[in-house]
Amino acid sequence: MKASAAILLLLPVCFSAAVAAQAPVRVNGERISAHLMALSEFGKNPQGGVSRVAYSDADRAGRQYVLGLMRDAGLIVHIDTAGNLVGERAGSDSTLRPIVIGSHIDSVPEGGNYDGDVGSLSAIELAQTLNERKLRMRHPLQVIIFENEEGVMLGSTAIGAGVDGARLNSISQSGKTVREGVRFLGGDPDRLAESRRQPGSIEAYFELHIEQGGVLEQEHLKIGVVEGIVGIQDTEVTVQGIANHAGTTPMPQRHDALLSAARFIEMLNKVVTSTSGRQVGTVGWIKAQPGAYNVVPGKVTLGMELRDLDAKKIQDMFGQIRKEADAIGRANDTTFSFDQHALSAPALTDTRLQALISDSAKQLGLSMKLMPSGAGHDAQEMANLGPIGMIFVPSVGGLSHAPKEFSRPGDIENGANVLVEAVLGLDKAAKAK
Amino acid sequence: MKASAAILLLLPVCFSAAVAAQAPVRVNGERISAHLMALSEFGKNPQGGVSRVAYSDADRAGRQYVLGLMRDAGLIVHIDTAGNLVGERAGSDSTLRPIVIGSHIDSVPEGGNYDGDVGSLSAIELAQTLNERKLRMRHPLQVIIFENEEGVMLGSTAIGAGVDGARLNSISQSGKTVREGVRFLGGDPDRLAESRRQPGSIEAYFELHIEQGGVLEQEHLKIGVVEGIVGIQDTEVTVQGIANHAGTTPMPQRHDALLSAARFIEMLNKVVTSTSGRQVGTVGWIKAQPGAYNVVPGKVTLGMELRDLDAKKIQDMFGQIRKEADAIGRANDTTFSFDQHALSAPALTDTRLQALISDSAKQLGLSMKLMPSGAGHDAQEMANLGPIGMIFVPSVGGLSHAPKEFSRPGDIENGANVLVEAVLGLDKAAKAK
Repeated sequence: MKASAAILLLLPVCFSAAVAAQAPVRVNGERISAHLMALSEFGKNPQGGVSRVAYSDADRAGRQYVLGLMRDAGLIVHIDTAGNLVGERAGSDSTLRPIVIGSHIDSVPEGGNYDGDVGSLSAIELAQTLNERKLRMRHPLQVIIFENEEGVMLGSTAIGAGVDGARLNSISQSGKTVREGVRFLGGDPDRLAESRRQPGSIEAYFELHIEQGGVLEQEHLKIGVVEGIVGIQDTEVTVQGIANHAGTTPMPQRHDALLSAARFIEMLNKVVTSTSGRQVGTVGWIKAQPGAYNVVPGKVTLGMELRDLDAKKIQDMFGQIRKEADAIGRANDTTFSFDQHALSAPALTDTRLQALISDSAKQLGLSMKLMPSGAGHDAQEMANLGPIGMIFVPSVGGLSHAPKEFSRPGDIENGANVLVEAVLGLDKAAKAK
Repeated sequence: MKASAAILLLLPVCFSAAVAAQAPVRVNGERISAHLMALSEFGKNPQGGVSRVAYSDADRAGRQYVLGLMRDAGLIVHIDTAGNLVGERAGSDSTLRPIVIGSHIDSVPEGGNYDGDVGSLSAIELAQTLNERKLRMRHPLQVIIFENEEGVMLGSTAIGAGVDGARLNSISQSGKTVREGVRFLGGDPDRLAESRRQPGSIEAYFELHIEQGGVLEQEHLKIGVVEGIVGIQDTEVTVQGIANHAGTTPMPQRHDALLSAARFIEMLNKVVTSTSGRQVGTVGWIKAQPGAYNVVPGKVTLGMELRDLDAKKIQDMFGQIRKEADAIGRANDTTFSFDQHALSAPALTDTRLQALISDSAKQLGLSMKLMPSGAGHDAQEMANLGPIGMIFVPSVGGLSHAPKEFSRPGDIENGANVLVEAVLGLDKAAKAK
């Protein structure tokens, strides 16, 4: 009896596993949509979209809501010292390293309801789906909702490369210092190092995200398999001329810094677009001094940015731009100087995980392409710990960081199912080791 | 006895007149330099130059000093309701209209010691020279030291076209409203209309001024005979694109307002320099929004200015610029719009006065050329009342509105002597009428 009772008790589990082997594991797309809608209430703007900047009241309240969803999904949740929400689900083999999935829920000021939210709620949905299907993975599963991605990528950096003091003292969009903000979310800025993890400590990190660009939509594709997160080089450029009276200074006698800056902007665009590839280059801000109708600008500062998956390509473009800037300066009696403001190295995704994601999309009958991520993501910090994989779904109109940011529910559901397939695929593949 | 006494009393005057007919009337250049140096103490900046903005304490104190010089020069001085210093010297024929000379002594913030000061102190020197030589002109002579030229050309506008209420309420560089400032200088802003004069009420207005450009110096000339004061058209240009993520938006999908603005700046320069003439065109200020390294600018506003002696030429250039801007917009998926900010019509000098000035320079052996004034001057307001003439002397390095503004004492003395010759020449010519 005892033996048969034990068999009877085990039956439901075996039965579930048998069903799982036959019926594909699929997320509940409507539930993701409902959660997205509920989350959009936190920091909702009357004119549309959301302002849920890190460390604001809306951010904390939104995180509290998401913490509840994580618990509903059967995750054991704690807040780490960096303020990240970490939800854990045990695997069947405690010797294996965790497979980590996640994203963020903070927004830019006057942002939208998809950047970060889609990946966060889909990661929780994955856990909930496994829970409902009573499926146990071999690997432990961790769902992490990182904090302050949009500001200084604080939460993932604390787990990945570690945070320096300067970043803790910076003022966040909420008005609080990052240090105050971490504490506000339940972390402990004085014990941040305890959140940091060792390289090699994770089996893999997967993140689903909206594309934030218009490539997938334009090419009528459903899934972007991210090749890597581009490196970013920001440089402050100064053009020095001579300020003079705009009425009394004849055209040939001018040293017009803004005219040189205009030629620089056009030249940068030509350098970036003259070679094939998906590199981008932007002049995003500009300041002309003294800045009046009646004065020839004597000094211009501007911000240039180059991005590419290949760090060498960035350097080559920059070298060419500097060279051509010198020629522009000489031709117009002005001088150029360059001051590097920020640099982040490209973070490539793991080719094995790329293949897993591609195979998952194929299996689901979804069109896709390999593409770079032009934006930064928490995944680039997680790349310090182990292989990363990223899945993109289309952004309508390519819009992001704006109230009109939108991704279709069906596309989000597809992306979440690709995430499930990829995670379970990796979990199985690890079995075969 | 009575008769002979009368003859004896008249003798010195006749003697003086006889000397005047023989010895040329020349200013005391050293005295002008000494007065320039003394005036430079009012609002002197430790790092050089002067900040004697209209309605500041330094401005009022400087005007008080100049008022003393005017009295020393034998002028009967009053402050009109606009706050201008008006010094009068009777002529021998009270039916004739006054010949007016003058300039201003207010400066831009961190300005120099020559713009306005040279013409003001030379006009006073003219009166003093006539006084010392006991010369009486046929026409009444008026020396006017206008107030607030650098700000809103208030003093001369009050005398010329009249001042509207908006200008009175504007905030001056001193922090005071113009209304408060006029009162501060001893005027009465509520009775401003009493300072206004009728068209045809003056015989002529002459102004000596530094060139504020580098043409005379570059061409090794001593005197500029001003053909007119250029018209100025200031236009705010808006370039509308679409702000988007600078990482995720591929180059061909951008609507980059700053790239279009850069092409506009280059195009404007080409339009202005592609035809012969002395027209100038400037983009003096620019603002890109939102203005961050990582956002493709969605909107740019910039200030363009066109100047020329010929109003039609300004309009033709503007028409061409608008047409080419539309093409730039279409080619780069952005749109241009134009909002005229300010317009002042060209003010031509009188050809008879130009000839008088040229003849005077020739007589003094000074090289010269006809040239436009690229900057605005009180003379353009006096053009509402009668014929105007302007004399330029070289600016070293073409610098103005800056601490390093400088004109050589010898050049200033030359200019003042040309002013004397021209005024006396006109005075004589009027005799012949």
